[in-house]
Amino acid sequence: MRYTPAGVPVVSCIVGHVSRQTENGVERDVECELPAVALGDMARQLGVARCDWMVEATGFLAAKSKRSRAPVLHITNIKFLEGIDNGFQTEGSR
Amino acid sequence: MRYTPAGVPVVSCIVGHVSRQTENGVERDVECELPAVALGDMARQLGVARCDWMVEATGFLAAKSKRSRAPVLHITNIKFLEGIDNGFQTEGSR
Repeated sequence: MRYTPAGVPVVSCIVGHVSRQTENGVERDVECELPAVALGDMARQLGVARCDWMVEATGFLAAKSKRSRAPVLHITNIKFLEGIDNGFQTEGSR
Repeated sequence: MRYTPAGVPVVSCIVGHVSRQTENGVERDVECELPAVALGDMARQLGVARCDWMVEATGFLAAKSKRSRAPVLHITNIKFLEGIDNGFQTEGSR
């Protein structure tokens, strides 16, 4: 975790996604990775997560910088789906 | 418009996004660009669009290739929002 000059906590990570989707009537496997960032309370929640935890992250896409238009996911809501096989879901540890 | 070896129409484009979002309690301007692709009927619909048309595109993110994990938006639904100031919305021209 790092901090902005104003002392706001910031956590950066890469979110991986794997699923099956239907495109043009054909089912296919889908994978992708997206750089993501969380600020403030979201950063504190994300900061306790392990790299292999399954999460449901929602937010908005914004360009990485003025020069790089590549999308970064700004996480505004996160739900930990760890231990999915025993049905245990955490609303994000405080 | 190009075609796959199997003759499926494919249209590639860059989707630009501009909006205001709230992050960590602060409102901010957001911009980003995302490479996008449409296949089959979606390609035919997207193929008639002009670059400056406003659209509402939904779909899924998938890695560009096995080597490049950068996300590409695969459009599975598109709604043309052109002429928004006179309230005219097109459900996609056939």
